[in-house]
Amino acid sequence: MAKSKLTIIVGSLRKDSINLKLAKTIAELGLDLFESNFAQIDDLPLFNQDLETDFPASATRLKTVLNAADGILIVTPEYNRSMPGVLKNAIDWASRPYGTNSFAKKPVGIMGTSMGAIGTACSQHTLRPVLNYLDVILMGQPEVYFQYKKETFNTEETKKFLKNYVDQLAAWVERHRSDSTLG
Amino acid sequence: MAKSKLTIIVGSLRKDSINLKLAKTIAELGLDLFESNFAQIDDLPLFNQDLETDFPASATRLKTVLNAADGILIVTPEYNRSMPGVLKNAIDWASRPYGTNSFAKKPVGIMGTSMGAIGTACSQHTLRPVLNYLDVILMGQPEVYFQYKKETFNTEETKKFLKNYVDQLAAWVERHRSDSTLG
Amino acid sequence: MAKSKLTIIVGSLRKDSINLKLAKTIAELGLDLFESNFAQIDDLPLFNQDLETDFPASATRLKTVLNAADGILIVTPEYNRSMPGVLKNAIDWASRPYGTNSFAKKPVGIMGTSMGAIGTACSQHTLRPVLNYLDVILMGQPEVYFQYKKETFNTEETKKFLKNYVDQLAAWVERHRSDSTLG
Amino acid sequence: MAKSKLTIIVGSLRKDSINLKLAKTIAELGLDLFESNFAQIDDLPLFNQDLETDFPASATRLKTVLNAADGILIVTPEYNRSMPGVLKNAIDWASRPYGTNSFAKKPVGIMGTSMGAIGTACSQHTLRPVLNYLDVILMGQPEVYFQYKKETFNTEETKKFLKNYVDQLAAWVERHRSDSTLG
Repeated sequence: MAKSKLTIIVGSLRKDSINLKLAKTIAELGLDLFESNFAQIDDLPLFNQDLETDFPASATRLKTVLNAADGILIVTPEYNRSMPGVLKNAIDWASRPYGTNSFAKKPVGIMGTSMGAIGTACSQHTLRPVLNYLDVILMGQPEVYFQYKKETFNTEETKKFLKNYVDQLAAWVERHRSDSTLG
Repeated sequence: MAKSKLTIIVGSLRKDSINLKLAKTIAELGLDLFESNFAQIDDLPLFNQDLETDFPASATRLKTVLNAADGILIVTPEYNRSMPGVLKNAIDWASRPYGTNSFAKKPVGIMGTSMGAIGTACSQHTLRPVLNYLDVILMGQPEVYFQYKKETFNTEETKKFLKNYVDQLAAWVERHRSDSTLG
Repeated sequence: MAKSKLTIIVGSLRKDSINLKLAKTIAELGLDLFESNFAQIDDLPLFNQDLETDFPASATRLKTVLNAADGILIVTPEYNRSMPGVLKNAIDWASRPYGTNSFAKKPVGIMGTSMGAIGTACSQHTLRPVLNYLDVILMGQPEVYFQYKKETFNTEETKKFLKNYVDQLAAWVERHRSDSTLG
Repeated sequence: MAKSKLTIIVGSLRKDSINLKLAKTIAELGLDLFESNFAQIDDLPLFNQDLETDFPASATRLKTVLNAADGILIVTPEYNRSMPGVLKNAIDWASRPYGTNSFAKKPVGIMGTSMGAIGTACSQHTLRPVLNYLDVILMGQPEVYFQYKKETFNTEETKKFLKNYVDQLAAWVERHRSDSTLG
């Protein structure tokens, strides 16, 4: 069976982002299940509908990689009890121009990590209705609200926990991937 | 092809509820696609975990009808910019006891109507993350934020609009119904 | 200076509710600042607008106690990543009949506890827009997303943490209490 | 009595933005009550914590104008049933660096317009918990979910509706403006 193509969007631009670390671990744990690639979102302009007449190359690139994906994984921090503006800006571009929403019918998983105990619970809470509106097939369980601790991140227990998520996501993408081509 | 079994939950208990009217219209427009039944939620006690040791008959009945459904449709008003407590209470019962969530893996659609212009947009917004948590396969599009006006409710235009929703929901249930049995 | 009258609403009906425990601890820690009373919500009927013509005595009682309060504290669990239906049902009753919203202009704080790490973060997230709609003066900081652990609940550290919240809430109520009478 | 200083943030960057139009109308209707200024957010970089060590001049400028404000008004469109990424990005910058949140204790109002009937109801819904977290004094009523129609925008009825909002906001800012200096 061919591997699924998984596009990963990381909601933080920080070089040493713990969400980037988490995303890389997921990609690694899923090596036998996914052909993973990371979407670049740090060079997108702030969304402005006026720019649509000359659609930015960086936004076209984002749409192209999403359109080609069998599934999408969003790994995001929480800023001010909501998703980061950076991530929402990427989503806004990917949803445009009207009628070409690049998320439509894609199987999608979301997860995130923070230093705090709630582990991005509110951030993910704000993402869910947006993704539902964008007509994705959104995986509900299992959830990953991951509190990042340097000393435990590389343990077997963490890997086992994350590997279970990877397996569930792979099954979700496999089951629903055809939706975007048959739809 | 056998019709899908659709269980409809109406979020209002009012006898002349416009959401009940809407739900009945949906059931009627879907007569050739669905075998519809309405879940009774008005005799549920307020949720109290202490009652789980002697699980209320009304809550068991709700769970039984949801478990048997191929798909679920929630038609709900908006109370105070959120879903009604009445509806959330029914959802809370249906999700219990732990490990027997009756929504799991079900294809679900939501819609609603109000007298005001926003037509339950906020109510549905609050429902989406709850249903996602309950691991349903949630239909994102089309949305129905329906402003109820007596004079236009029975027009052909309204029927056409609602019939489109019914057709989309039927396709959604048909495509995802097996998820709950294969899962 | 006279103590503020604080009405506390607990979102769980369970006899041994950890949120009830938390609420009692708050009342105790605030003995010198508040005259606290607990609103009874377990005998409210499920909200039904048809019942408004003969407004239930239990709902009138709830409105009366809220109307008399200088401030309100909601201590609530999280059910299915949202506020409990039980709590929303109480809020729905307190907001009715139209034009007599008993929350209007009241200083309000919210907090909650759960066994899990996110400590009701999503539940409180869903409460905030509802309370804002009900025109309360909602305290934003500090937040209390409290993970309940039997062994640490009675420690000095916990008491210090909660006492800080009590002091902040008392200042909030004191500053904004006149809003409901001057308004 | 001195006029209040009101900083207005518009959530759209489009040159002919209907939210900018709405914001300008508000500023005009409030000429005798507010000294209004518009916050510039279109030249902010995408938020990246790595940039905080050399805090961008555009973000400092945003923080300076917010710090000096007696009150803040956010006028925003809805993108994908949530606030725009552009607006969230501005909020994220204004909240940083840690400990210097420029929204803290400010009286804030929010409103928005769209071509569709729900008039930014979901966008504003997502803003409320973020602003509450940022410890603002958030005005709840009246709400403005404004459906933009070219033919009715300049009517007396619209002006009267908006003027009422302006008056309420002015009273809100006047009552709570001292909170940010006394706090």
